[in-house]
Amino acid sequence: MKRAVPVVGLAGYSGSGKTTFLEKLIVELKGRGYRVGVIKHTSHPVEFDKPGKDTWRHARAGADVVALASRDNVAVVRKYKSAPGPEDVLPLVDGVDLIIIEGFKKGSWPKIEIIRDEVPERPTIPVEELLAVIGGSAPQEDVPFYGLEDAAAVADLIEQQFLKKSRQV
Amino acid sequence: MKRAVPVVGLAGYSGSGKTTFLEKLIVELKGRGYRVGVIKHTSHPVEFDKPGKDTWRHARAGADVVALASRDNVAVVRKYKSAPGPEDVLPLVDGVDLIIIEGFKKGSWPKIEIIRDEVPERPTIPVEELLAVIGGSAPQEDVPFYGLEDAAAVADLIEQQFLKKSRQV
Repeated sequence: MKRAVPVVGLAGYSGSGKTTFLEKLIVELKGRGYRVGVIKHTSHPVEFDKPGKDTWRHARAGADVVALASRDNVAVVRKYKSAPGPEDVLPLVDGVDLIIIEGFKKGSWPKIEIIRDEVPERPTIPVEELLAVIGGSAPQEDVPFYGLEDAAAVADLIEQQFLKKSRQV
Repeated sequence: MKRAVPVVGLAGYSGSGKTTFLEKLIVELKGRGYRVGVIKHTSHPVEFDKPGKDTWRHARAGADVVALASRDNVAVVRKYKSAPGPEDVLPLVDGVDLIIIEGFKKGSWPKIEIIRDEVPERPTIPVEELLAVIGGSAPQEDVPFYGLEDAAAVADLIEQQFLKKSRQV
């Protein structure tokens, strides 16, 4: 594989504001001209009953891969017999400058952790994988620390660490 | 590209019973052990507001590629600046023995046409691309003709013409 797209993880308990923060981060990175891919892993079953009702009927009828192409996007749903891992999903997200991945806790990519004051527990992330901490109060670890509104500063960090380097290569 | 997956088109006006017929055809082909991919092209805009609400929020925030991985499937939505054509979509449907494609009328793959008695107009398909006609009354063209219930016979035809050959290669 010739892929060298940088991968950054986003970790945090449900309700920590991950989705809203990620939206802001995407807007920041897009505004700087980067092509952004996002992968979310969920442990819940995902039933495709919309959009493209007919299309998902085909998936339920047994089709292994179902694609719905419209004027400005293509959706592809692919079935797996055993749970797909990052190694299955990452190659599907090509043509981007950066991949932000949420879930797949065991991946060893650098991770941004989002903390919420009301949620005292924190995900267990090895300190060597911790790229930054966002929200809550300043962490004990010696890593960059930002507020939930600081998407621009986090974009700076990602740009400096992963994107400018990869552009020079 | 090393792809040699056979492609069969399915054509017919809305309301001709395409979706129901295709469901039956998929079940037939899956029952024979083939891996089936389905592509549908729609001229309508497709807004991904479900499933994986968060995921589609990321797409709307500007992410170029968004993937949602669950225990047994992966959905990937990819944005295009200009309308994606078959050459964009076909390579996304890999790992299958056969691709059935609906829409993309200009593709030159062999086509199965579905006719409904109540809909007298027929899609304009060059006779050399017409693999079979299904439903309605017997067509003037000298091509195999089946009823809407004859998914097994159509699977036989596809198997003989495209799948057994490709297995021998």
